[in-house]
Amino acid sequence: MKKIDVSILGCTGTVGQRLIEMVYNHPWFNIVSIAASERSASKKYKEAAVNWHLPMDIPEEIRDMTVVNTDPRETGARLVFSALPSDIAKEVEKNFAEVGCVVASNASAYRMEKDVPLVIPEVNPDHLQLIEVQRENRGWDGYIVTDPNCTTIGLAMVLKPIYDRFGLDTVYVSTMQAISGAGLPGVPGLLITDNIIPYIKDEEKKVMTENLKILGKIKDGEVKFADFKIAVSCNRVPVIDGHTETVFIKTKEPVDVEEAKKVLSEFEGEPQRLNLPSAPKKPVIVRNEEDRPQPRLDRMAGTVPGMSVTVGRVRQGFDENHLLLTLISHNTIRGAAGAVVLNAELLYAKKLL
Amino acid sequence: MKKIDVSILGCTGTVGQRLIEMVYNHPWFNIVSIAASERSASKKYKEAAVNWHLPMDIPEEIRDMTVVNTDPRETGARLVFSALPSDIAKEVEKNFAEVGCVVASNASAYRMEKDVPLVIPEVNPDHLQLIEVQRENRGWDGYIVTDPNCTTIGLAMVLKPIYDRFGLDTVYVSTMQAISGAGLPGVPGLLITDNIIPYIKDEEKKVMTENLKILGKIKDGEVKFADFKIAVSCNRVPVIDGHTETVFIKTKEPVDVEEAKKVLSEFEGEPQRLNLPSAPKKPVIVRNEEDRPQPRLDRMAGTVPGMSVTVGRVRQGFDENHLLLTLISHNTIRGAAGAVVLNAELLYAKKLL
Amino acid sequence: MKKIDVSILGCTGTVGQRLIEMVYNHPWFNIVSIAASERSASKKYKEAAVNWHLPMDIPEEIRDMTVVNTDPRETGARLVFSALPSDIAKEVEKNFAEVGCVVASNASAYRMEKDVPLVIPEVNPDHLQLIEVQRENRGWDGYIVTDPNCTTIGLAMVLKPIYDRFGLDTVYVSTMQAISGAGLPGVPGLLITDNIIPYIKDEEKKVMTENLKILGKIKDGEVKFADFKIAVSCNRVPVIDGHTETVFIKTKEPVDVEEAKKVLSEFEGEPQRLNLPSAPKKPVIVRNEEDRPQPRLDRMAGTVPGMSVTVGRVRQGFDENHLLLTLISHNTIRGAAGAVVLNAELLYAKKLL
Amino acid sequence: MKKIDVSILGCTGTVGQRLIEMVYNHPWFNIVSIAASERSASKKYKEAAVNWHLPMDIPEEIRDMTVVNTDPRETGARLVFSALPSDIAKEVEKNFAEVGCVVASNASAYRMEKDVPLVIPEVNPDHLQLIEVQRENRGWDGYIVTDPNCTTIGLAMVLKPIYDRFGLDTVYVSTMQAISGAGLPGVPGLLITDNIIPYIKDEEKKVMTENLKILGKIKDGEVKFADFKIAVSCNRVPVIDGHTETVFIKTKEPVDVEEAKKVLSEFEGEPQRLNLPSAPKKPVIVRNEEDRPQPRLDRMAGTVPGMSVTVGRVRQGFDENHLLLTLISHNTIRGAAGAVVLNAELLYAKKLL
Repeated sequence: MKKIDVSILGCTGTVGQRLIEMVYNHPWFNIVSIAASERSASKKYKEAAVNWHLPMDIPEEIRDMTVVNTDPRETGARLVFSALPSDIAKEVEKNFAEVGCVVASNASAYRMEKDVPLVIPEVNPDHLQLIEVQRENRGWDGYIVTDPNCTTIGLAMVLKPIYDRFGLDTVYVSTMQAISGAGLPGVPGLLITDNIIPYIKDEEKKVMTENLKILGKIKDGEVKFADFKIAVSCNRVPVIDGHTETVFIKTKEPVDVEEAKKVLSEFEGEPQRLNLPSAPKKPVIVRNEEDRPQPRLDRMAGTVPGMSVTVGRVRQGFDENHLLLTLISHNTIRGAAGAVVLNAELLYAKKLL
Repeated sequence: MKKIDVSILGCTGTVGQRLIEMVYNHPWFNIVSIAASERSASKKYKEAAVNWHLPMDIPEEIRDMTVVNTDPRETGARLVFSALPSDIAKEVEKNFAEVGCVVASNASAYRMEKDVPLVIPEVNPDHLQLIEVQRENRGWDGYIVTDPNCTTIGLAMVLKPIYDRFGLDTVYVSTMQAISGAGLPGVPGLLITDNIIPYIKDEEKKVMTENLKILGKIKDGEVKFADFKIAVSCNRVPVIDGHTETVFIKTKEPVDVEEAKKVLSEFEGEPQRLNLPSAPKKPVIVRNEEDRPQPRLDRMAGTVPGMSVTVGRVRQGFDENHLLLTLISHNTIRGAAGAVVLNAELLYAKKLL
Repeated sequence: MKKIDVSILGCTGTVGQRLIEMVYNHPWFNIVSIAASERSASKKYKEAAVNWHLPMDIPEEIRDMTVVNTDPRETGARLVFSALPSDIAKEVEKNFAEVGCVVASNASAYRMEKDVPLVIPEVNPDHLQLIEVQRENRGWDGYIVTDPNCTTIGLAMVLKPIYDRFGLDTVYVSTMQAISGAGLPGVPGLLITDNIIPYIKDEEKKVMTENLKILGKIKDGEVKFADFKIAVSCNRVPVIDGHTETVFIKTKEPVDVEEAKKVLSEFEGEPQRLNLPSAPKKPVIVRNEEDRPQPRLDRMAGTVPGMSVTVGRVRQGFDENHLLLTLISHNTIRGAAGAVVLNAELLYAKKLL
Repeated sequence: MKKIDVSILGCTGTVGQRLIEMVYNHPWFNIVSIAASERSASKKYKEAAVNWHLPMDIPEEIRDMTVVNTDPRETGARLVFSALPSDIAKEVEKNFAEVGCVVASNASAYRMEKDVPLVIPEVNPDHLQLIEVQRENRGWDGYIVTDPNCTTIGLAMVLKPIYDRFGLDTVYVSTMQAISGAGLPGVPGLLITDNIIPYIKDEEKKVMTENLKILGKIKDGEVKFADFKIAVSCNRVPVIDGHTETVFIKTKEPVDVEEAKKVLSEFEGEPQRLNLPSAPKKPVIVRNEEDRPQPRLDRMAGTVPGMSVTVGRVRQGFDENHLLLTLISHNTIRGAAGAVVLNAELLYAKKLL
């Protein structure tokens, strides 16, 4: 097949680097341009990406590619992957959508807009219906599709099968989030070594509202939010990649632990049915060892490395309506770059590109 | 005053080392012997404590002290501080209590026994009434007083004023526990670097049951357990000292955040009233910065370093009966060695020695 | 081709785990048995390898394989890969060689024996001549071939081309060695977090003597040691994998930095010429960025991941006879498991199996 | 005594924070103003020092002090302690000296100027003679006294007694430097966790040239540099505080290890003779344990915590002219803030203020 041209916006940060790693050899997509802020623009990528942090070297073809401005006239491609900071994304992504581009965005700027789909392909692909609403509302030739916050994604993928099978009353989540989630330069080494920072700006609100939107149902052209209650406490820990979340779930129906493991383990969605290139065979992997999941051992889980969420310590709480578990997902792969790519693959497979 | 002779059992581990650090210059107590397992016995302490891990050097007088066996005929003192492993403590502590020794123990062996006080001096000093029951039941000349697990202590100190003021319905706790809590050699560096281990053997059960006992009331010579529900998820993180706990509290009465901070901040107990040497002026310190407490900055909090619990991020959850907060306490000081010492100080001040 | 049966001795440690990872899918070798100490023997591997530390799961076929004793009657294969502790290896490896086995060993027990080859295939494949001497001397049907210490290997591979081109007068080496080099349980997390341990038992002597043997020449059936002087200082650092070494080299001939980079970069040996499966295309990779090599970015370098040594910061010292550089090699791959496998591949290719 | 007013320039960085910690309760000095760049000026200190990283809280009196500009008209005090970045220090420190201030500086801007003393009070207090030369040369009412780079200080304090007793031919140094040495925000946590960065900009040159100046002799109003050769390789490691240096010393005279330990251990200088408040009883502490010094255990060494350098692993190299050792000094105390304060104490004691 002829590959589809794509441009990467925000190419120098941690998510931008992962996007390059994931798209560089992609069977469907072809990187035609990479864009970043003025500070990086017109530099060669190898000079702009001074903080390249991945074990894989910068791909040869990308090394000497010149970074352009985040301007549709410079990027060329109709499909753009955005890993822009949220404040910049607000304006820039609109600029692209206006002129007909399809923006698969990891930025938070548009996630909670009523007419913008916030999609995890395994969880709520039907929310793509909002694309038409969005184009009509805004008069855009193109459109924006967003994926959730890195912490939301792992959680929503685990809550979805539980919600469908047992109902959700309340969810309490305490996170232990990796340093890479803070981007670059991100958290100073001096402040995170031998330490925990029990606060991540705006994060808890994102995790709460995004989960309710994603698990909501489309009705009359908008999302009716899910109605369970949720409390979140976010912490930064000295781990490089992989967000760990301990989850206390109060279900509506009594829950059997083995049944819960079964619905988690068997959970799959359109990406698996459509056999999308970045879809792992199992979106959720359930482990039975008492001391798993662990970020260093499980963050790269999945037949597509880093695209599966790993769940462990599935157990009952103090009554039969309480299910406790721990989950880990790779924050810059499934939680960011991979989410962008999988969304784009879904758009393509559903002929929405 | 003439100091009281004390022997330290289990002197080479992380808690034993902290006991030496805290008792060595104590105004009331005088270390007359240090005891450990056969492997260490008859060695000089400096040779037995190969893994000494504290910045302070081994005190000069202790360096060349010969480690004896954990046998009352070798230890000499009537008062003994036990930092023994639980399986060994079961037998050894009994041996000491039988022959008339007072055992202030940090081991878990006797904590949940009906006639053994499990005491945090600020929280439930009245539980010392069980001493008489214990002596009668068992026919011992001495007795055993225990302090809780390192994770329990910080939590119970924070729950106590909330419980008294607002009532407790349910408590959900996710912990991030320091490496020193696993003792020595403890967790291999290879397994904890850039990682989290989401499981600590037996820990969750301890935290649940111990909190209910400590916050229970003495009635008819035994403890009537507190009746709130509790779910706990314990994690080991790459932090040297200081356990962090995120706590979701469902109260019985509606809770006002400022009022909650006030009762926490004003909480105090007998150690403060009796002006015990190891009692911090404020058992609970409330911080208002959005990113505190942090283990590296707050673990040594308190006018007696490491003896105060620090609470932060006190906020409301999704309804007025939900209070969320994060707490940190030093696991080997307030959570272990300091707990032993403070219990002994309380016994002395109450003329129970 | 029909694969050659191999048994892995010492299968549960960090090197044993890497051996399983590297041999499991090997094109030439087939694991028929895995052996370990009595403590593990007769357990299934998944139960014996409680501290499995690699992101890759234990291969399915190995998971349920029963661990046998380190006894030739139980292991079956003629070719054995030994990752045994040195004290045990002394006796066990002899037992295997006596009954006709070929032992490719990573243990230090026999490395410095006069009639035992200590081989890095790119550096001194001719030392395999000692096999015949060994068999005659000892009357063994089989024989032992050893590979060097993990710190020696990276260093010797870098010194070799410098030695050949410029001569070596003196070498000063300061190492920063990864935690995985200490095995399991190895260094306690409590002692290595936020710390450096400036001492590794017996390590400095090994690095000094092994380098002189490896870079020595065979003459009259024995190794005439290289005659340069060497001083080594070994440190353990909080890095998971990858030994870093800063090297100050006083050469005999004046050295030109660009010429030095060239001989390093172009260095290759028999494994490359024979196209051995575990041979990286370039044994030594020279990087020109001012802040490379870094263990997290460079430890997996090479077309066979982890089998290349990366050199950077190649520069002149205070005179033209001083060359300074920093090198990194993966201590459990190129420095241990990969060294065993590459030696075995060389033996096979040279028809010595 | 009436305390001497002092102003702290560059009060928000890691060294500025340490200066506040050390001067806040100083018996001789009184902080009358704190100054920083425009970004911080006119904020209260507690708002400007967002990255306060010390376990001790910001002192109460300093918390609400308003940060002023680095302008002598705003700072008030004649004595100023400078922890400014070097590029800013060049201009600012001159401004202060011109108007009569005495600048005790930790910046590198003036260290290598011919007429500026670069002083470690125990090593080369006689270099203060340059003050007069400086004032004459430059026509300043005040003057600048500098202290060396954090890595230089520990090294020079250890080389000094060796130099005096055995002579120095060549010194090879490989460092493992703490994160706090890079300031704030400094090295990103994402880049230093599980990693080493084998390069610190400009550092190696500083260590080389500064040591030669400090160990040089004053002659005819200028410093005749020491004439030994030196090669340095600097590395950043994931350690919070405390620079570790492995040192290979080729002496002029044959060196006896016990004699070397003795001269190191007995080394002292004017600060000890003058009993300066920040002078540790022993500037150099020699440890005999095979695995010391370690940054976490030894960085706070000394009767004034963090002001002693700890040396260990003192041993002979491959001949009697080679002495090997490892040293640790606290980079922000003895290596920066404490160096400023000790220099100021020396100036006062010598009536140069």
